[in-house]
Amino acid sequence: MQYRLYYWPSIQGRGEFVRLALEEAAADYIDVARQPGKGFGIPALMRLMDARRVEHAPFAPPFLQAGQQIVGQTANILLFLGARHALAPRSASGRLWIHQLQLTIADFVAEAHDTHHPVAAGLYYEDQKPEARRRAEDFRNSRMPKFLGYFEHLLAHNTRGPYLCGARLSYADLSVFQMVAGLDYAFPRAMASAARHYKRILTLSRAVQDRPRIAAYLASDRRIPFNQEGIYRQYPELDAR
Amino acid sequence: MQYRLYYWPSIQGRGEFVRLALEEAAADYIDVARQPGKGFGIPALMRLMDARRVEHAPFAPPFLQAGQQIVGQTANILLFLGARHALAPRSASGRLWIHQLQLTIADFVAEAHDTHHPVAAGLYYEDQKPEARRRAEDFRNSRMPKFLGYFEHLLAHNTRGPYLCGARLSYADLSVFQMVAGLDYAFPRAMASAARHYKRILTLSRAVQDRPRIAAYLASDRRIPFNQEGIYRQYPELDAR
Repeated sequence: MQYRLYYWPSIQGRGEFVRLALEEAAADYIDVARQPGKGFGIPALMRLMDARRVEHAPFAPPFLQAGQQIVGQTANILLFLGARHALAPRSASGRLWIHQLQLTIADFVAEAHDTHHPVAAGLYYEDQKPEARRRAEDFRNSRMPKFLGYFEHLLAHNTRGPYLCGARLSYADLSVFQMVAGLDYAFPRAMASAARHYKRILTLSRAVQDRPRIAAYLASDRRIPFNQEGIYRQYPELDAR
Repeated sequence: MQYRLYYWPSIQGRGEFVRLALEEAAADYIDVARQPGKGFGIPALMRLMDARRVEHAPFAPPFLQAGQQIVGQTANILLFLGARHALAPRSASGRLWIHQLQLTIADFVAEAHDTHHPVAAGLYYEDQKPEARRRAEDFRNSRMPKFLGYFEHLLAHNTRGPYLCGARLSYADLSVFQMVAGLDYAFPRAMASAARHYKRILTLSRAVQDRPRIAAYLASDRRIPFNQEGIYRQYPELDAR
């Protein structure tokens, strides 16, 4: 069975957390909205979000189709894939723990997005620049240290290996890599000046990046470059040491 | 075994979604931070968030202790409780679906919170009033219709009973009730003028409210009244028809 991933075709966005899991699992999948032709593209994505025709229509991309099943919400998709592709612990309590970390990353991702869209996702950045400047300042000075400090602490005191669960990689580790990559892109100065506080996170992130399948994916054209339409954007006025 | 719920003692907040599930399940639980005395109160809550001493320390409340296990993140706690107390479908695909809806509600809850704190959760509302006014306007005009319209559509086309899963109540139904209660409190004018578009949601919400255990809970002093410290707050300047 071939998975069908539905996500906006021009950004990494939340879909990237799913792509990384599919790539690490060497799963057979098709990135539907990025394919040309009839039955693909954004219309194919929109069609599955119509509750009049689709049972279990999702609220928003990304969502994943596996046979007849459609699974939405990034962390929920990873919960589903983690169990099927050994990207999560085997025990029920271990699975809840990794899912909990994924949901914490999801909260952090939403806050990173809101640095450039603190008023409305439907407005342009240019229409909310003063608000964005205030929110980004709080994000750099308060939220980044809080979230990154949490994961650094976990890695220091709570695990017995390079990964969040110890010796074995999980989808949450892949997401930590993506989170760091995004922050490095959007807040290079803030990240550079804080790097010494987050050595374990950065080590984990590099370990993920160097995994053969992830390295091959990152070098391929399946990896969409960061750009000014995604969650992480490079607005120098929102960054600072 | 008695569950121990850890959440801020003076607000409904995100803890309320868990309280409603525990109450509907008639589960034996103690609301730790609301109890007086040694070993209780906020210090007991803070202690479990210290990764140096606690394996699987959560990032933030609410979290639930079940024997040796600590489960954090609201939706994750409900995933855990749903399976143990028949507040979720029995099938794996049904559980993912209800969890997906819960995560969509969680996104909506975070956006409701940010109407009064669009710049920084750590600042007072009074320090971000102009920004709050802009964000609340977008929330009322764009986000509320989008989220509520989604759930209304699901109930119209996707279920065969009063509840999101059809005939059987799930934790996501309890959360829909809480979401409606919060919106009614924070945005009474916007909700009143839009009520005709959300008849099925309001019917579902009343069905939850009338369940004997929920009705008893709501009438008890275990239900903390809405107030100006929680997620949903009554700032008339953020509301409008």
